[in-house]
Amino acid sequence: MLAVDRDSGDFLYRQVIDLINDNIESGTLRPGDRLPSLRRMSDKIGVSIPTVRQAYIELERQRRVESRPQSGFYVRAVRTNELVRPAPRFRAASKPACIGCRTLMERVYDGLYSPDIVPLGIANPCMASPAAKGLHRAMKRIMARVEERAISYAPTQGEPRLRRQIAYRYLDTVGSTVDPNEICITNGGQEALLLALQAVADKGDVIAVESPTYHGLLELIDSLGMLAIEVETCPEEGVMLDSLARTLEAHPVKACMFSTTLSNPLGVTMSEEKRAEVVRLIEDHDVVLIEDDVYGDLLFDGNRPKPAEFYSRRGNVLTCGSFSKTAAPGYRIGWLLTGNYGSEIERLKRSYSCSSGLLQQLTLSEFLATGDYDRYLKTLRPVLQQNAERMRALVAEHFPEVTRTSQPVGGSVLWLELPKCVDSEVLFDNAIEAGISIAPGHIFAPRKRYTNFVRLSFGHPWSDAIESSIAWLGAEVSRLSR
Amino acid sequence: MLAVDRDSGDFLYRQVIDLINDNIESGTLRPGDRLPSLRRMSDKIGVSIPTVRQAYIELERQRRVESRPQSGFYVRAVRTNELVRPAPRFRAASKPACIGCRTLMERVYDGLYSPDIVPLGIANPCMASPAAKGLHRAMKRIMARVEERAISYAPTQGEPRLRRQIAYRYLDTVGSTVDPNEICITNGGQEALLLALQAVADKGDVIAVESPTYHGLLELIDSLGMLAIEVETCPEEGVMLDSLARTLEAHPVKACMFSTTLSNPLGVTMSEEKRAEVVRLIEDHDVVLIEDDVYGDLLFDGNRPKPAEFYSRRGNVLTCGSFSKTAAPGYRIGWLLTGNYGSEIERLKRSYSCSSGLLQQLTLSEFLATGDYDRYLKTLRPVLQQNAERMRALVAEHFPEVTRTSQPVGGSVLWLELPKCVDSEVLFDNAIEAGISIAPGHIFAPRKRYTNFVRLSFGHPWSDAIESSIAWLGAEVSRLSR
Repeated sequence: MLAVDRDSGDFLYRQVIDLINDNIESGTLRPGDRLPSLRRMSDKIGVSIPTVRQAYIELERQRRVESRPQSGFYVRAVRTNELVRPAPRFRAASKPACIGCRTLMERVYDGLYSPDIVPLGIANPCMASPAAKGLHRAMKRIMARVEERAISYAPTQGEPRLRRQIAYRYLDTVGSTVDPNEICITNGGQEALLLALQAVADKGDVIAVESPTYHGLLELIDSLGMLAIEVETCPEEGVMLDSLARTLEAHPVKACMFSTTLSNPLGVTMSEEKRAEVVRLIEDHDVVLIEDDVYGDLLFDGNRPKPAEFYSRRGNVLTCGSFSKTAAPGYRIGWLLTGNYGSEIERLKRSYSCSSGLLQQLTLSEFLATGDYDRYLKTLRPVLQQNAERMRALVAEHFPEVTRTSQPVGGSVLWLELPKCVDSEVLFDNAIEAGISIAPGHIFAPRKRYTNFVRLSFGHPWSDAIESSIAWLGAEVSRLSR
Repeated sequence: MLAVDRDSGDFLYRQVIDLINDNIESGTLRPGDRLPSLRRMSDKIGVSIPTVRQAYIELERQRRVESRPQSGFYVRAVRTNELVRPAPRFRAASKPACIGCRTLMERVYDGLYSPDIVPLGIANPCMASPAAKGLHRAMKRIMARVEERAISYAPTQGEPRLRRQIAYRYLDTVGSTVDPNEICITNGGQEALLLALQAVADKGDVIAVESPTYHGLLELIDSLGMLAIEVETCPEEGVMLDSLARTLEAHPVKACMFSTTLSNPLGVTMSEEKRAEVVRLIEDHDVVLIEDDVYGDLLFDGNRPKPAEFYSRRGNVLTCGSFSKTAAPGYRIGWLLTGNYGSEIERLKRSYSCSSGLLQQLTLSEFLATGDYDRYLKTLRPVLQQNAERMRALVAEHFPEVTRTSQPVGGSVLWLELPKCVDSEVLFDNAIEAGISIAPGHIFAPRKRYTNFVRLSFGHPWSDAIESSIAWLGAEVSRLSR
């Protein structure tokens, strides 16, 4: 196990990861075994301690190992029926396409807001343990403090206090400086995506997306009369650089829309180098990256990576953030780091929706400034992590053995590959009949694909109804795969 | 004076109006004279009492006469220096155009939100007497009642309770039935305009607008890569039917965007027949009417006309409403009556901004359901009317005599025609220097036009600063016209 190749061109810490993975795969390291200490490993293979630490932390993120306080890193125990990892690489279509599943998408949305439906089809992490009380308190303070101003128009670009808080937060969490004047407040992350896309691309243009990708993004591309082309991904690293490079060579791509942290539905977080490489590649091709970073605060370990925007040298990256996944979905407050496109984005924002809600902006800036937001995230993440564990355990128990799942390290969704013969549209229809909403794989790609995949959300307060719904789904999948 | 022509084809009540206007113009009826009673007039000219009443009410709306309780209708007194009426007809360019004054528009917006600027450039009626206290109370009740649900997502189409309240209100104020399922809640009236326009037209399409028209509408058309063509208007009746007919014949117009009640900046309200005729004309040409009806509740006399939508037989009218002008600008809640385009609009709404703020929707439905909204409007309208009178009196006092103004019967803006030699862009620049924002005429048409016009807003709590600003503007206009 103990060899690295300094001439291979691969990062050293990735070689360390590969070494350990090989040893786990071969059975040399078994579940429950302790990894060599950082110092010992460093001495043995001749790389620095920080490099070993980086490898161990990455392995922990991949859930191959776990750290135990005061003790070290251990190979994770495999549960009975633990699900194998998803397919190593999601292959992509090679031509731009319109969206083929409008009707199914609409049916998925139709069921979401009925109180009688168990809502496993919507990604809504913060409702697993809502911050309503704290937000209500903050809002009442604001109403008392600013009185009449609370109902008036916010500036188009957004309330300056909130923009400053968002900038502070970048400094605080990733150590990067953002100019509050380069932030535009939007109606949730969705409007941030809209404004970014409209600022850089036009009807008929080709937009590169991950495969699979967030369905709301596909619907947006479709609404604007643009075409989506898929870039291959893998569940460990996200966007595959070779596939991205090929796509940029072969097609007149105007922009890439990638989720850098906790991609939806895969749940992948791009490493820091991956971000740098993606940005270099898109800037070399004079393409814009629209970065969907709405889940950044929801990594279970709380270590948010730098947005890709900070690796940009030319201002070609537009980063979309939001409080909808992390605090208050119904406030409809997101933001956009506007890169080179500040004045164009402000003009679009004004003509599309004038400005965003002032009271919610003031309330969120209060919620951030008091530290309540951070304290809230610290209570939310363990709830999500526990929900994720419970859901995976139940899937392992009730679904056919060949089912593969993602290994969530944050966020609120689990991505499942069902037996090949199962059509998840049929599963969706039957589930809705049974009072359960799910997100069928079809809606996560422009062409018919992922037809035997399904996304389940664990972003709800855990309940018996959820447990029995998962059991029901498992039984139904078994029935459909017979 | 006493003759009507039943064969002329003109409406009888309009003939009554013409008769009385002729008599005022000729001096037969003088300021302060009492008009004949309804019954007497009816007997004399042989038309029904309701027809005479309709004529008198319309004359009152035109501010030619005023009603005095228990007494009758009187020809209005002309004040010293009362301003003559605006030019009888605004001529329009005959070719579609892109917008030529982007930069000026941006400069107009730049000054609006600074606390040091006297904001005469923004149309913000409800801030003249804000409903903040009542809205805050309603919001606190909602937060206490629905708790965690208050921060969650609203349905894409909008909270059902608010849609029902809006439907009730149409029944209550204009006696017309709206299906709550044909209402889509939007981020203010601006997003309603966006969704309507995107649903019916495409990049490069030609959109007919009033001349002059609301600048936000022009900016929206421009953002979507569409072209605007102007239709002539007159300050008494709004859109001229002959100009509209010519435009629809000569150009491939995809949609008309007209303001039916209290147009901005002219302040015209289309009569009921005019609405019917406009709708018939556009439906004959298979064109869609996007009706901007955000000021409907702000006629000083409180008599809201039926939206043009109710004259449509084919579902070709999309009506945009909003609470931004009448209750809470910062809530960003408007709506769209979706006509034939329900599912397309819902899809657009979802992909553009997901949904609108839930807490504000619940608060407004509470505000409407308790009757607080109606009570509030009854206090707001007289404040606006008084502000309008004060502003006109000050303009009469301080501006050159040749200045003409609109005669506001509602809303919050006054439209001024300055001496021909005055460039209102220069006036704008000098005013901003002096700490006053105004809206120069240039921004109300796609081509350079209305260069000697300016729009002033009286939708703010009256103040010494406003008075001295109007005096300053008058002096500056005099200086510039020398």
